[in-house]
Amino acid sequence: MGELVRVVVDAMGGDYAPAEPVKGAVDALNENDHIFVYLAGKEELIRQELSKYTYPKDRLEIVPADEVIETGEPPVKAIQSKKNSSLVAGLTMVRKGMADAIVSSGSTGAVLVGGQAIVRKVKGVERAPLAPLIPTEKGVALLIDCGATVDARPSHLVQFAVMGSIYMESVMGVKKPRVALVNIGAEEEKGNELVKETFPLLKENKNINFIGNIEARDIPKGAADVVVTEAFVGNVILKLYEGVGAVLISKVKSGMMASLRSKIGALLVKPALKQTLKSFDVSEYGGAPLLGLRGLVVKTHGSSKAVEFKNSILQCIQFKEQDLSGKIQEHLSEKE
Amino acid sequence: MGELVRVVVDAMGGDYAPAEPVKGAVDALNENDHIFVYLAGKEELIRQELSKYTYPKDRLEIVPADEVIETGEPPVKAIQSKKNSSLVAGLTMVRKGMADAIVSSGSTGAVLVGGQAIVRKVKGVERAPLAPLIPTEKGVALLIDCGATVDARPSHLVQFAVMGSIYMESVMGVKKPRVALVNIGAEEEKGNELVKETFPLLKENKNINFIGNIEARDIPKGAADVVVTEAFVGNVILKLYEGVGAVLISKVKSGMMASLRSKIGALLVKPALKQTLKSFDVSEYGGAPLLGLRGLVVKTHGSSKAVEFKNSILQCIQFKEQDLSGKIQEHLSEKE
Repeated sequence: MGELVRVVVDAMGGDYAPAEPVKGAVDALNENDHIFVYLAGKEELIRQELSKYTYPKDRLEIVPADEVIETGEPPVKAIQSKKNSSLVAGLTMVRKGMADAIVSSGSTGAVLVGGQAIVRKVKGVERAPLAPLIPTEKGVALLIDCGATVDARPSHLVQFAVMGSIYMESVMGVKKPRVALVNIGAEEEKGNELVKETFPLLKENKNINFIGNIEARDIPKGAADVVVTEAFVGNVILKLYEGVGAVLISKVKSGMMASLRSKIGALLVKPALKQTLKSFDVSEYGGAPLLGLRGLVVKTHGSSKAVEFKNSILQCIQFKEQDLSGKIQEHLSEKE
Repeated sequence: MGELVRVVVDAMGGDYAPAEPVKGAVDALNENDHIFVYLAGKEELIRQELSKYTYPKDRLEIVPADEVIETGEPPVKAIQSKKNSSLVAGLTMVRKGMADAIVSSGSTGAVLVGGQAIVRKVKGVERAPLAPLIPTEKGVALLIDCGATVDARPSHLVQFAVMGSIYMESVMGVKKPRVALVNIGAEEEKGNELVKETFPLLKENKNINFIGNIEARDIPKGAADVVVTEAFVGNVILKLYEGVGAVLISKVKSGMMASLRSKIGALLVKPALKQTLKSFDVSEYGGAPLLGLRGLVVKTHGSSKAVEFKNSILQCIQFKEQDLSGKIQEHLSEKE
């Protein structure tokens, strides 16, 4: 690999900005020498954070941007009016080809709107879906779409299935990824209008390995590699994963404190348990790419710490090497 | 309480019929003397099962029905053609006022179709929702609708909210139950068309304590008592609850087997853990009533064992005592 992969990090986005995104960027640079990082945000604050660390200075540059988009702001208005925000500055660099990717932990709405409006969609792509990896019993699955396109149409879901397959095959190395459609029963005739219309379209699509409907209970079991659904349901799935996991873990912990006997046991199982629970933590799996754009936009969890920023930055190498956008364009524009 | 509560048990429905429904009925009769049970199904098989137990014979009667509706059968056709099935026989008894309630673990589709077609809706009710209780960190919440009405309209969701409130207040004893609408963000302007149209209707409804939108991650935390959503999303929530719980528990168990140290710990925490996990098991909470009908129809999980049948049968006492159908009719017909 010759060229460096150039990643803009939105240093002002997320709950722990700028400390955690800056640390994540430094850690990524120290771990991998194929990365070049642009830190977009308030110069003074970024310099202050950077002064704490040692890192290869020739592979990092600050992109001064004085404005910050807050979580509560209406996304469209924020993107249009705050031209000098870290997010808009970073997206613009990706659009102009000055950077390959941007990683942001800022407002999901602003990242989605900005990604589509500034970086723009690949030719042939109708909607750009947000596609996080979620843990399963056997590994991970791609959940697509989980928040970008509300009130999606069947043709959107078909494109999501194709993009998700390309992602799992090229980035995650899964051969012939199993694509399934989220439904409330396994039979073809089940479900609402959207899934009933989508099912035959997926069935006849030659570019994917469609295995049929999947019921929500089988997602955590790893019954599919690409889990296709519209944004509302996808978002509910992602957040419920998180919620049920968190409550169950807290119940397990308090349950083990119930007696002296179990307290002693708890001390002994703690290290093993911690490892297990970590493997089922949604936030462990780096950022979610907004697929189908002319450059790479990765959204990380609002509460991301340095390790998640680092992982998301390093992910971009694989995205770039595999030419994800190019492959998507090739598949989706030939169909028109 | 003077009169007996008369419950039909569909002895042929579910994965473990007739053994488990019959045992559940016997256990309910032995535990509570306000119950009268009709066991509907193949007489020979039921007699065979009954011969294993001691029970008050004056409070049990067999309703012979030779046909069985299978899980895979198209519901409408099954209900229309199998007049002599245990399910249709039981539903007809409820319709004719010969029984107060029916408990069935058979095909969900058939129970939903049969309930609406045979028992029929209360005047003023547009759609009858299926409403299971789900475990939360603090207790339980009612998930309404979780499978009855696909492609629901805003007016349906408003009725679900009212019926769910009545249920939680009268059957579960929750004062001014907190009603929330499942959405992908907390703000009023978020979501798809259905929730955007439903939100203001819930907000202006004086009969409920509407607390706004709820994100899926907050459902397990117990942030609302009545969780309102359309059937597709509700079904995904119910099944994902089950799926994430099962996988996480199996991961916790295998995680504890990772080292000798944790294996010893596992032995010590096991009893406490078992209790905890049981409190978070969806199937522990009895059957889901199909609300808004002129009699009580309770659907229990397909894999229900005797204890779930027993709990569901005993639940019917509370339903009857509180005159759930009467209260729903009073609230919903006055609005017309």
